[in-house]
Amino acid sequence: MFSIIDGGITAPKGFKATGRHIGIKKVKKDMSLIVSDVPAIAAGVYTKSLVKAAHILWDREITKNGGTVKGIVAISGNANACTGQKGIKDNQKMAEHFAKCLGVKKEEILTAATGIIGLDMPMDTILKGIDETYPYLSNKREDAINAASGIITTDTFIKEMALKLDICGKQVTIGGMAKGSGMIHPNMATVLSFITTDINISKELLQKALYESVKDTYNMISVDGATSTNDMALVIANKMAGNPEITEEDEFYEEFKNALCFMNEKFAKDVVHDGEGASKLMEVEITGAATENDARLLAKSIVNDILVKTALYGEDANWGRILAAMGGSGAYFDPQKLNISLESDGGKVSLMENGEPVKFNENKALAVLAEKDIFVKIQLFDGNYSAKSWGCDLGHEYVRINGEYRSRT
Amino acid sequence: MFSIIDGGITAPKGFKATGRHIGIKKVKKDMSLIVSDVPAIAAGVYTKSLVKAAHILWDREITKNGGTVKGIVAISGNANACTGQKGIKDNQKMAEHFAKCLGVKKEEILTAATGIIGLDMPMDTILKGIDETYPYLSNKREDAINAASGIITTDTFIKEMALKLDICGKQVTIGGMAKGSGMIHPNMATVLSFITTDINISKELLQKALYESVKDTYNMISVDGATSTNDMALVIANKMAGNPEITEEDEFYEEFKNALCFMNEKFAKDVVHDGEGASKLMEVEITGAATENDARLLAKSIVNDILVKTALYGEDANWGRILAAMGGSGAYFDPQKLNISLESDGGKVSLMENGEPVKFNENKALAVLAEKDIFVKIQLFDGNYSAKSWGCDLGHEYVRINGEYRSRT
Repeated sequence: MFSIIDGGITAPKGFKATGRHIGIKKVKKDMSLIVSDVPAIAAGVYTKSLVKAAHILWDREITKNGGTVKGIVAISGNANACTGQKGIKDNQKMAEHFAKCLGVKKEEILTAATGIIGLDMPMDTILKGIDETYPYLSNKREDAINAASGIITTDTFIKEMALKLDICGKQVTIGGMAKGSGMIHPNMATVLSFITTDINISKELLQKALYESVKDTYNMISVDGATSTNDMALVIANKMAGNPEITEEDEFYEEFKNALCFMNEKFAKDVVHDGEGASKLMEVEITGAATENDARLLAKSIVNDILVKTALYGEDANWGRILAAMGGSGAYFDPQKLNISLESDGGKVSLMENGEPVKFNENKALAVLAEKDIFVKIQLFDGNYSAKSWGCDLGHEYVRINGEYRSRT
Repeated sequence: MFSIIDGGITAPKGFKATGRHIGIKKVKKDMSLIVSDVPAIAAGVYTKSLVKAAHILWDREITKNGGTVKGIVAISGNANACTGQKGIKDNQKMAEHFAKCLGVKKEEILTAATGIIGLDMPMDTILKGIDETYPYLSNKREDAINAASGIITTDTFIKEMALKLDICGKQVTIGGMAKGSGMIHPNMATVLSFITTDINISKELLQKALYESVKDTYNMISVDGATSTNDMALVIANKMAGNPEITEEDEFYEEFKNALCFMNEKFAKDVVHDGEGASKLMEVEITGAATENDARLLAKSIVNDILVKTALYGEDANWGRILAAMGGSGAYFDPQKLNISLESDGGKVSLMENGEPVKFNENKALAVLAEKDIFVKIQLFDGNYSAKSWGCDLGHEYVRINGEYRSRT
């Protein structure tokens, strides 16, 4: 069992971080640095978009084939995406420069960027920024917050967390920070997630635990259905907790994976809550699907559906749109025998039972939908698989933010 | 070569139609009848949604396995979807009743419905309505318009057309009517398309021509990405033009297919133009794709993308969102060497060349995007396949219409 503790990215033993304003953005913090005192192993999960930012290519190579890592340099305000060969070289320069500051090889530095795409990185600003920022690296609570602040773009709040758990009598700590939010063009809704931990685990299982946790969390959210060029989740582990190395999928692996899932689920929900212009969050739960793939496809089809999203905004108990989204998802289910209900702090209302619409009380439905967090529960009777997904509504504020003239912002 | 003539569903030889208000809706016409003087062959293409309205199951059986047909009965205001076994029986009763009026078998009658889902059809109203409507069947221009009016729901204009072409010295005529529009819940954006023709063609080739035309037209549009439970395109052919039967994919088949494509493309664009709350139409053209599937996937991913749709609404030349939609589509293309440009009556502006962003003139881009019809042209250099898709913007009016309280409408 894990428990939540106060802290962020610097909570685990042997990690320092900081975040500062270096001049990529006008005023807000725009650079974050993270280092491990000792060489750490790293795992990553990356965007599946065919159009990948330079840092995705760099980090993917390192987490796949590289050795240990010492640190991460992340900037916000410029995505270094769609910047061609120059972007790839600039990214390498950024890694190289931070590596030199730390006295390590450039292949020991992971990179990240989020912000405007199609714009070359301001390299003078960035290299000077690294020089000025790295002396501030510390394991203080404040610097974890600074680091979490340095990666956000249009996010309205920072996203960070720390967890501790016991592995063979040793305290293992996990610290994380993330950013999401929507996409004031020409930005895109990049999700960046950074996790540090002092656990001792094999590289293979670290990668597996991260992959499993991302599959059930970040991959099951939708703000606008878009896949960013820059999306990435990284975890680095430096073994300083001193637990015996986890090399099998035993109970300790499961405990660690559960903690990772918990943290990434929290961040994923935070990202949805903070989606630009979002006023409501829906959690969709599919149970009783015939296969895992059906469960996931159905859950995602609902949070991605424009009509469901506008109905949520309008506090409209529109089972027809939910059913239509499921019907068009490509997943199998038997429409003759499903139940659909809505729940929130305002109560519960059943919309369909055994595939037939229920004559529900409109006022009761309105009371449920008047809340901010809405749970959509769908019971199928086709099998034993289940899945959850999270999404937000689509209302006037979303259109206002995303429909503004790019040239006028 | 075909040419456009004045007329609608009754233009071809031997077809009569009419449309009337029978009382399903409050005021507007809500029943359309179409008959052929002589038995006709029929072809259909139906929604791929797992949740299918009763008429879809009925018509699919007839066009797949049945013999000739004599008529079509269509109602609007009630979708007869999600109505279980009762809906299936009610649909059959509707067919049976119209068949009795015409003195034919119920299996010679195709059916259609569009409107509110999950509500039993008002059978007394419908049966009485058929009795009162069928005496008005005629081939007058006015009754084609009445028929086109009887199928629309929230459409703001009727969609109809007639074409003539010469096949071996005989004049062949094609008449059509369609409905689309968006979805004031609990309705859904049903697309219904009915085409009559006096051509003499084999049933197999009639089906093939319809399928090909739907693939490139209705299947390439997006108002909100939703797949309706009721979508359907039917064509019935009664051979009265007297041309020698088309039994091969020869030049005459191609001419007929081209005319069908032209008509369905017109209707498909009309549906997008008439999408609820739409203020702009985009036509996306992909050229140079590696495969047909890539071309189609890429074209559809752009018109379906919420961020592209809001950018279009905001008259924002946001190439980043276009590229991101393409990157996340699952289709292959080489992002290092594509061109993206926008065109309209307001001019032309290039946004990307050889995979690199172009520093374009913002005023020029605004002039292009200020128009109502915007052409998005994307040149790939990966192969020889191309595809077109059509979609609309997503703005405040869309949210207003689709986000209203269902219970308050």
